[in-house]
Amino acid sequence: MSAAGTTPVRASQVRSWAAESDVLVVGNGCAGASASIEAARAGADVLVVDAAGGWGGASAMAGGSLYLGGGTPLQKACGVADSQEAMYAFLKAATGPDPDEAKLALYCEGSLEHYDWLVACGVPFTPRLWNEPSWEAPSGYGLMYTGGENTHFFAGIAPPAPRGHIPHMEGKRPGERSAGWMLMKHLVATAERAGVRTRYDTRTARLVVDDGRVVGAEVVSFGERSFLRARQGVVLATGGFAANRAMLAQHAPRVLGNFLIGTDHDDGRGIRMGQAAGAAVRHMEAAQTSFPADPALLCRALLLDAHGRRFITEDAYPGQVGQAALFRQDRQVFLLYDEAAAEEVRHAGGYVAEATWVSDDLAELEEAMGIAPGVLAGTVETYDTHARQGRDPLFHKSARWLRPLTPPYGVLDLRGAMFGVFTLGGLHTSARGEVLNLEGEPIPGLFAAGRTTSGIPAWGYCSGTSLGDATFFGRRAGRSAAG
Amino acid sequence: MSAAGTTPVRASQVRSWAAESDVLVVGNGCAGASASIEAARAGADVLVVDAAGGWGGASAMAGGSLYLGGGTPLQKACGVADSQEAMYAFLKAATGPDPDEAKLALYCEGSLEHYDWLVACGVPFTPRLWNEPSWEAPSGYGLMYTGGENTHFFAGIAPPAPRGHIPHMEGKRPGERSAGWMLMKHLVATAERAGVRTRYDTRTARLVVDDGRVVGAEVVSFGERSFLRARQGVVLATGGFAANRAMLAQHAPRVLGNFLIGTDHDDGRGIRMGQAAGAAVRHMEAAQTSFPADPALLCRALLLDAHGRRFITEDAYPGQVGQAALFRQDRQVFLLYDEAAAEEVRHAGGYVAEATWVSDDLAELEEAMGIAPGVLAGTVETYDTHARQGRDPLFHKSARWLRPLTPPYGVLDLRGAMFGVFTLGGLHTSARGEVLNLEGEPIPGLFAAGRTTSGIPAWGYCSGTSLGDATFFGRRAGRSAAG
Repeated sequence: MSAAGTTPVRASQVRSWAAESDVLVVGNGCAGASASIEAARAGADVLVVDAAGGWGGASAMAGGSLYLGGGTPLQKACGVADSQEAMYAFLKAATGPDPDEAKLALYCEGSLEHYDWLVACGVPFTPRLWNEPSWEAPSGYGLMYTGGENTHFFAGIAPPAPRGHIPHMEGKRPGERSAGWMLMKHLVATAERAGVRTRYDTRTARLVVDDGRVVGAEVVSFGERSFLRARQGVVLATGGFAANRAMLAQHAPRVLGNFLIGTDHDDGRGIRMGQAAGAAVRHMEAAQTSFPADPALLCRALLLDAHGRRFITEDAYPGQVGQAALFRQDRQVFLLYDEAAAEEVRHAGGYVAEATWVSDDLAELEEAMGIAPGVLAGTVETYDTHARQGRDPLFHKSARWLRPLTPPYGVLDLRGAMFGVFTLGGLHTSARGEVLNLEGEPIPGLFAAGRTTSGIPAWGYCSGTSLGDATFFGRRAGRSAAG
Repeated sequence: MSAAGTTPVRASQVRSWAAESDVLVVGNGCAGASASIEAARAGADVLVVDAAGGWGGASAMAGGSLYLGGGTPLQKACGVADSQEAMYAFLKAATGPDPDEAKLALYCEGSLEHYDWLVACGVPFTPRLWNEPSWEAPSGYGLMYTGGENTHFFAGIAPPAPRGHIPHMEGKRPGERSAGWMLMKHLVATAERAGVRTRYDTRTARLVVDDGRVVGAEVVSFGERSFLRARQGVVLATGGFAANRAMLAQHAPRVLGNFLIGTDHDDGRGIRMGQAAGAAVRHMEAAQTSFPADPALLCRALLLDAHGRRFITEDAYPGQVGQAALFRQDRQVFLLYDEAAAEEVRHAGGYVAEATWVSDDLAELEEAMGIAPGVLAGTVETYDTHARQGRDPLFHKSARWLRPLTPPYGVLDLRGAMFGVFTLGGLHTSARGEVLNLEGEPIPGLFAAGRTTSGIPAWGYCSGTSLGDATFFGRRAGRSAAG
């Protein structure tokens, strides 16, 4: 944190402006880029600043699906049926508690248009469905299930459809040019064509406020402080706060001790600048957590709590498994599987960590795991008995994965394993991207989008709701800022 | 919420002050009363305002223990050994994640002095230990276990000692004159003797700020607005936000749909006024939750999750059970017990709700409960087998309560039962009671205490840490405000 802090500067204290624009966008990840495009298209003169040396932020590192649906051309090309209603019902159940229903409704209504917008920006999608459990789809696939829509519980709420729309990657190895990077590349190029100006290596320190209205920001570039005037509005799009240990301790202490998904610039500065200008925050304890085992192995294994019992269907969306393991089990979990499962995963190119213990004898494993005698044997016996009948009456794992286990058993001790995390809580914004104060009223001149805000993934998460929400409401924030 | 909101008024906009004092205390629960006493004793002219028609707030409704220890005269008179170190080690483990260690250290160091201070204020404690599991001790007992210090896990962290110090109640029936009311009565009388002035039916709407310093407040009394000047400081002590549905949705959505422990004035106004003046908040999702069954029955029963498995030792501190059931099991729990357990509880004057289902046949109960066949039978068999050996290797319930169950079994369906809740999150304050901004720096002229702040019960809770923390840090906030 800078010594000066985030308390806004009064405009009367600003002696000169180093630059002016109609709209100042802080952060050039996918939220900021989308905001800049739409502000520029609305006729505004737009300046985007970013603390990093170039565009992209955490967005460019993302596996990179966008959660879209309701029958997009990509879904249709893959032979997938979907509806706005199903998408809404699913997201309402999956992203709560307390999802923002106004945002959710708009997000579902506008999904087809948003897909077209992305395509018009040049973002390429390949009409090929990936239907295996995995962290990410391999190169060459454009659509996948990213929220457990087709698993127990959610499948009963709405007709399932895959809605993770993955920008086509370049390069052979996944991650080389990630889908998030591909998304960003085309958004930034579109912004440039629309006349958006950019300044990098420029950290925003504080907002400038004139009689309650945000009119600019103080920035620091290579040690030099200066002021940027925003005649119409400032859009905060600096990402979340997973890189800020003090903020995590204050708001999401259970998340501490894991590893960051994002960049060092995810320091919550945008959130604090907004708060210092009077903004309310929502759901600051919420975080997405990646589970530290290959989803392909997870769905073929038994996921056990510290006492040796199952606690969730192993074919649930891995992020949901991660949240359950982190927030409800304090990360004290084991994975039990047999050689056939490991072999299948390896054969499919998946990752199987070396088992902590291997034994034919469940009693021996119970002792090694430090759990009460008989519990593990009971868990496995119950599972096997039902698996032989092709059912899982406890957690309703899909029949596709049900098979009695064959000794020897391998147990992966995940207690102490670090989960990948990023934060979901942030500024309270309207569906128009206005930043709201403690009374729910817009703060004049201040807008925000992306993980600086609490958005579609209010608490529960599905892959694609972060890039999806950030681009969708980033556009709206940009239009609102342009007036 | 008022239309005017909580955005601070600038001092230049105040035309006249209706009253002046050195220190203005907002809220006359135990935090405000303690602050007012110490501010007055430090020589300040003190005015206390409260939105209600009289003193007390939620404090006066409280069961009313104060968490104190380290060898208080009351503990010694009850033959209880304790140490500051044991108290600190226990609280550090019980009140996290992320307890405020500076506050915790001070709280433990100052506990003996704080006990003497309460006694000097006239608060009476009866040297008699209550050693039964119950929501509250009956009249005539002054000390009890209020945090599960003597149960598994915590007993391994520090030598257990009962630390719930209960002001002696008047009246025969518990609650008629609750311990919290008795505490308040003596604090208010002490404040009066110290020259503290009070105004009731006076709701505080907004803070008044002069160039970043809090210098007073706008209040509303019977529809009339006026301004109160505070020459040295304002102490916010308006309680938590469990009565504010919008704030719960924003910060603690899992808490929604329960019943409020507190008063309608627990609307989070103090927290919002502080935030609007630039304050940071901590742990806003945290809440204490009372479990909806008599602790005497709970410890003799099996507490089951939605799948028919145990998930916590049933003799844990009931508030800890409540948090586990609410935050980790979504309140989807059952209680299974036998007639002998029910009889013991009834005999001791405890409460046993009518069982939802009664049967000799666990398979029949499984069907009624809608859980997978065999699971309940497995849970009961495992429990009984170990209970016969006097042990509980899964959850380590005390041998005192271990006994194989005898059919018929009664099952209480608690899915959908409402829990009693109050919030624990609030303003970020220093151990001196200063309200801190987003950079961790004190906001000049602004102080706070009690459930308006995040205090000793950072997330985990023990009975007595609310009144204990509120009085202890209330005193410090009062002294700091008096300069």
